Amino acid sequence: MKKIRVTIWNEFRHEKRVPRIQEIYPEGLHKAIADGLAADDLEIRLAALDDPDQGLPDSLLDSTDVLLWWGHCAHGEVRDELVAKIQARVLSGMGLIALHSAHFSKIFRALMGTSCSLKWREIGERERLWNIAPNHPITQGIGEYFELPHVEMYGERFDIPADGELIFLSWYQGGEVFRSGVAFQRGCGKVFYFSPGHESYPIYYDRNVLTVLGNAVRWACPLRRIEVTCPQVKPLEKIGE
Amino acid sequence: MKKIRVTIWNEFRHEKRVPRIQEIYPEGLHKAIADGLAADDLEIRLAALDDPDQGLPDSLLDSTDVLLWWGHCAHGEVRDELVAKIQARVLSGMGLIALHSAHFSKIFRALMGTSCSLKWREIGERERLWNIAPNHPITQGIGEYFELPHVEMYGERFDIPADGELIFLSWYQGGEVFRSGVAFQRGCGKVFYFSPGHESYPIYYDRNVLTVLGNAVRWACPLRRIEVTCPQVKPLEKIGE
Amino acid sequence: MKKIRVTIWNEFRHEKRVPRIQEIYPEGLHKAIADGLAADDLEIRLAALDDPDQGLPDSLLDSTDVLLWWGHCAHGEVRDELVAKIQARVLSGMGLIALHSAHFSKIFRALMGTSCSLKWREIGERERLWNIAPNHPITQGIGEYFELPHVEMYGERFDIPADGELIFLSWYQGGEVFRSGVAFQRGCGKVFYFSPGHESYPIYYDRNVLTVLGNAVRWACPLRRIEVTCPQVKPLEKIGE
Amino acid sequence: MKKIRVTIWNEFRHEKRVPRIQEIYPEGLHKAIADGLAADDLEIRLAALDDPDQGLPDSLLDSTDVLLWWGHCAHGEVRDELVAKIQARVLSGMGLIALHSAHFSKIFRALMGTSCSLKWREIGERERLWNIAPNHPITQGIGEYFELPHVEMYGERFDIPADGELIFLSWYQGGEVFRSGVAFQRGCGKVFYFSPGHESYPIYYDRNVLTVLGNAVRWACPLRRIEVTCPQVKPLEKIGE
Repeated sequence: MKKIRVTIWNEFRHEKRVPRIQEIYPEGLHKAIADGLAADDLEIRLAALDDPDQGLPDSLLDSTDVLLWWGHCAHGEVRDELVAKIQARVLSGMGLIALHSAHFSKIFRALMGTSCSLKWREIGERERLWNIAPNHPITQGIGEYFELPHVEMYGERFDIPADGELIFLSWYQGGEVFRSGVAFQRGCGKVFYFSPGHESYPIYYDRNVLTVLGNAVRWACPLRRIEVTCPQVKPLEKIGE
Repeated sequence: MKKIRVTIWNEFRHEKRVPRIQEIYPEGLHKAIADGLAADDLEIRLAALDDPDQGLPDSLLDSTDVLLWWGHCAHGEVRDELVAKIQARVLSGMGLIALHSAHFSKIFRALMGTSCSLKWREIGERERLWNIAPNHPITQGIGEYFELPHVEMYGERFDIPADGELIFLSWYQGGEVFRSGVAFQRGCGKVFYFSPGHESYPIYYDRNVLTVLGNAVRWACPLRRIEVTCPQVKPLEKIGE
Repeated sequence: MKKIRVTIWNEFRHEKRVPRIQEIYPEGLHKAIADGLAADDLEIRLAALDDPDQGLPDSLLDSTDVLLWWGHCAHGEVRDELVAKIQARVLSGMGLIALHSAHFSKIFRALMGTSCSLKWREIGERERLWNIAPNHPITQGIGEYFELPHVEMYGERFDIPADGELIFLSWYQGGEVFRSGVAFQRGCGKVFYFSPGHESYPIYYDRNVLTVLGNAVRWACPLRRIEVTCPQVKPLEKIGE
Repeated sequence: MKKIRVTIWNEFRHEKRVPRIQEIYPEGLHKAIADGLAADDLEIRLAALDDPDQGLPDSLLDSTDVLLWWGHCAHGEVRDELVAKIQARVLSGMGLIALHSAHFSKIFRALMGTSCSLKWREIGERERLWNIAPNHPITQGIGEYFELPHVEMYGERFDIPADGELIFLSWYQGGEVFRSGVAFQRGCGKVFYFSPGHESYPIYYDRNVLTVLGNAVRWACPLRRIEVTCPQVKPLEKIGE
């Protein structure tokens, strides 16, 4: 069986600088996700902003079927040329899973075309994610809803395009709602935005969150790659005078 | 009555350099469009790439309700900062109408997030635009279809996001089809892509094309402007322990 | 100015049988809505299930631009032929606004093609409706959200098709969320589902609810009527052998 | 491996009455499709309108993962109770593939909620189906387009809801275009409309058509079945006074 080649990219700054966060994710939250997703059909590689080539040399990007992206405080440091490369690969078929604060990453915003702005608050309140798409591959193994006891709140209006397929809708203790799981097609690539996952909470150890991410990886894996071109073509029908 | 402030931006290069094109559009195709759209409820301004500030100083952009954009051979010359400014205004509510070869303009691609690639051919064949949305504001005054005798062919697959509302579907003599009129919402702004309009043909004098553009301008005019922010907010509900 | 001809159809049973409900809506909730919507550009007519022709003789239906529909306990009594007539008129252009428990009305289900099922609870909890579409005609005059102090809860998963444009998303005190305002196009007609409005609460006197309904009426008014046919047609192009 | 249980329902009237059609499909076009789809992962059953229970007793319907439906001259004979049963099963997860003239079948119209009307012409012209979704499961093995030499023309405007995912767009020699392959989600079930397949042409022997149908069957197979209910629920959060 051909394995799905998954690359988990993490900004990986908070975990090195803030003891409280390091305690939760000692080797980085990308490592926690990798451990949680480990399975026979997946080949998982880790990448971080401070690695050479910002973690994504062409060789790695070219051999990636699905890219997971977590960034927060250093979105601006990611080079525009790298963003353009990732975007081109998504349009050709590579899957992208944008995690939590990656709503504001350059790559997610480039693919959406909108501001991707939202409301936020960090008081550790409870979130309940309602499963809106029970027959979607991403929700298999998930019940009608699941809860996260302590999260950063992300609230509407979330400025994304209307073609996102609603997978999860969140309820927050403080009174907001959010489209917390949304699936897009961009070019030939699949894009999933999934909001759980603040660095201050052990959310990437949660069984439901990991189930969703594992499902999303398999869903986002391309069926084939398409080269994007804008060709001049000959007529297929005879054109008289 | 408050007039809709329309700005028609044109790359305006072909018309100055190619005699055959100059003959069709002696003052630029933006001027032909302006003349064709002229109406009491519209205040129309012209702008061109070689004007100061590439035609769009902040003062003009800030007073524009709907921007029409025509570009072809000089997409790359439009400055990224200007594109970012236009995109921000669209997300806040300004309407944008992307004409013909503007499928590959920086601003349209930035708003779509996809490659916006397509097939093309220029042999002057016939195009028939089928009206798919007879109850949409953009198609009022248009019958089941209309024809253009000589056009540049733009064919599928057109790489745009799936949330475009289909307004026109085109048939070409040479055997292709195309989503030739597509309406999007991006942030709080409306975006209409309309494919007719090659510089070599007198398409912007066509009554149906002008009817569509006039309708699109009125449809794209914002109801209100929204400031894009990403605010930290207080809870609306009391949260116990 | 030509007025928009609005017909408000009400099952009108609870208000005649239950003193507590009669107190809130002594002349029926359709009358309360009519009073709340009264304006110079609207010509409003009332109709009820127990009227002749179940309230909707052809003459009234044919002269209706926008139909509001409230039903709850007697959905099954509405005759299938009447439902078919209403559906045909919506597909030709008539607007339909389905209110609250009309999620389960024959006409709304016929237009959706889905079960339109949901979760529900009546304990008088608080609902907060988030405005997801600030630039949509239906939300003009509405802020980021508005609250209703006591409502019947309608919760996800709401089984409706995916092409509904999200206008409002609701938060409930008890922990659920709901797509509480959703705009559809069916054929040439516009359909708006708006969930507030249980018979036991004075919701149709609420200023925000009335603003939304007034906006929705004007949005749903058809630009033109289209006759639905399935014609055999001649080729538009010459076909050789 | 669990096989996908496929049922191919055919009105099966033309083939018994018209010699020219019988010659093309001597055992019915459902048999030709079954032969063309035969594969190890599929268990295929045939059903026809004149069979007992109109071909679909509960036992067969309950053991069907994906139902293919072909009807033309006898839509009106299909009993409403059977249509309601099929619709309920689709909403619970069963896949449905509506073929050609099934655009006007009771079951497809019930699921769409629209008139599903279109233009038509039968002069045996050429059709070219453009692949709009190269990364979709339904188009795997299909190139940029494929052609059918002689078809019945189905032309726009096709009155279907806007949430159909465009899979194929057709070009016709006579000058029309058509959304010839469209994928829907209704409740928990997947629905695919595919227009090729008039009874007078040997279209169900075409390799590309069979590839698309085989792909569609596997795509439409439910991940799980969901029971449709409208439950009264208890609050998940404590509600104070």
